[in-house]
Amino acid sequence: MSAKARLTVVKIGGAVIDDTAAMEAFLGDFARLDGHKVLVHGGGRAASALCRRLGIEVRMVNGRRITDEASLEVAVMTYAGALNKRIAASLQARGCNAIGLCGADGDAVRAVRRPVKDIDYGLVGDVTAVNADLFAGLAELGLVPVVCAITHDGAGNLLNTNADTVAQAVAEGLAERYDVELVYCFELPGVLADVDDPASLIAEINPAEYERLKAGGIVSGGMLPKLDNAFRALDHRVSRVVIKSAENILNGAGTAIVP
Amino acid sequence: MSAKARLTVVKIGGAVIDDTAAMEAFLGDFARLDGHKVLVHGGGRAASALCRRLGIEVRMVNGRRITDEASLEVAVMTYAGALNKRIAASLQARGCNAIGLCGADGDAVRAVRRPVKDIDYGLVGDVTAVNADLFAGLAELGLVPVVCAITHDGAGNLLNTNADTVAQAVAEGLAERYDVELVYCFELPGVLADVDDPASLIAEINPAEYERLKAGGIVSGGMLPKLDNAFRALDHRVSRVVIKSAENILNGAGTAIVP
Repeated sequence: MSAKARLTVVKIGGAVIDDTAAMEAFLGDFARLDGHKVLVHGGGRAASALCRRLGIEVRMVNGRRITDEASLEVAVMTYAGALNKRIAASLQARGCNAIGLCGADGDAVRAVRRPVKDIDYGLVGDVTAVNADLFAGLAELGLVPVVCAITHDGAGNLLNTNADTVAQAVAEGLAERYDVELVYCFELPGVLADVDDPASLIAEINPAEYERLKAGGIVSGGMLPKLDNAFRALDHRVSRVVIKSAENILNGAGTAIVP
Repeated sequence: MSAKARLTVVKIGGAVIDDTAAMEAFLGDFARLDGHKVLVHGGGRAASALCRRLGIEVRMVNGRRITDEASLEVAVMTYAGALNKRIAASLQARGCNAIGLCGADGDAVRAVRRPVKDIDYGLVGDVTAVNADLFAGLAELGLVPVVCAITHDGAGNLLNTNADTVAQAVAEGLAERYDVELVYCFELPGVLADVDDPASLIAEINPAEYERLKAGGIVSGGMLPKLDNAFRALDHRVSRVVIKSAENILNGAGTAIVP
């Protein structure tokens, strides 16, 4: 049996998306990354800013955004339109044959509208399927998918999905065919013991250490779903997961998430 | 030598884009169209409407829009975002494996910013290359490209291009490999001798007849560039060009443009 080809799923998000210079530097590095690769991007603050300009109220419940029709339209315009196409054009200029996708394109990422329990999050999708045939076919054509976090339900409806989760789902969905590394990139050097001290980088986190970090309040907020996604990926055949600075995708620094 | 496979390039535009029921009916018919196919879509009035909501002035010179940075961003959000993804999701729901593209995606449609002569049209692109390898590769994967009229210059810049022209360029660019039919669809049954009388459909127009129609003022306005594009396609190996109602893409009605 031949070894599987390597494929890297890089997720870029956080403040990097909103920092043009940092984003361009990141895209230059991403273009140089060897082997098969997929870029998944978040949205930064552009969607909220456009909502404000259009007078669309951003509704939050327990710190989580509620996606109604108007804010979904803004998310689609911002993530699948402005941002996805700016990234594709920038990567093309760097010799990287990028192709921008939302979940509906080629049925790349299918989702189901999140069932209503206590809270109705609105037009939010939980991923149900990643089209590995599509990603493999595009890779054979030499194309580099750039995936935004807009999914579809197969019945004609677009849905808003968390970008970290899309990255995890894509990594997991491709792990049967490829030796997949999942890299979460953002503005910090990795998971920090003290969020104000970049030198407090935690080099490695296993499940037991994760429980200790949570219990001690060392990791909290947005880092929790990111780490949950990271461990879920490891549980589903993804070979390696790293959380690191967008400045470091070409080298080994960061926090390794290990079984 | 084997005969070339058939491929239909359908351009949808005009008032159909803004009429949800008409657009859904059209997409249902497009999904049923046999053989390889590409859909190119215009933008309707959504971009102008969004410009107004955002307080972005729509500048016109001699009836032609000037595209500045702010209105390009709106065009990208509207055409490559909201509209392109809604079409992709709708076609997926109809069993048509659509993949939405702007010109930057896979370097599908490259353009150069229009040189300034008397008027600076701003961030407007004149098409210089269509990536036939990409379209052929996607077709081999069973994918149906849905192309919006946003192009790129290969240097990282997106540009706004006329959708009729993108359709003509794609048809021309694929005509070496495929037996291409180009179908311009809109809300009228075809080219009319009297624009208020649907029964005045002109069944066929050749270059001499086109000159007579122009000289007599029978065709004018937006129909002129559409017909110029149609004849240009015929001059560049496209096998057939038809202008017809979006309601009739599965049958033979309309105005045939002939050499």
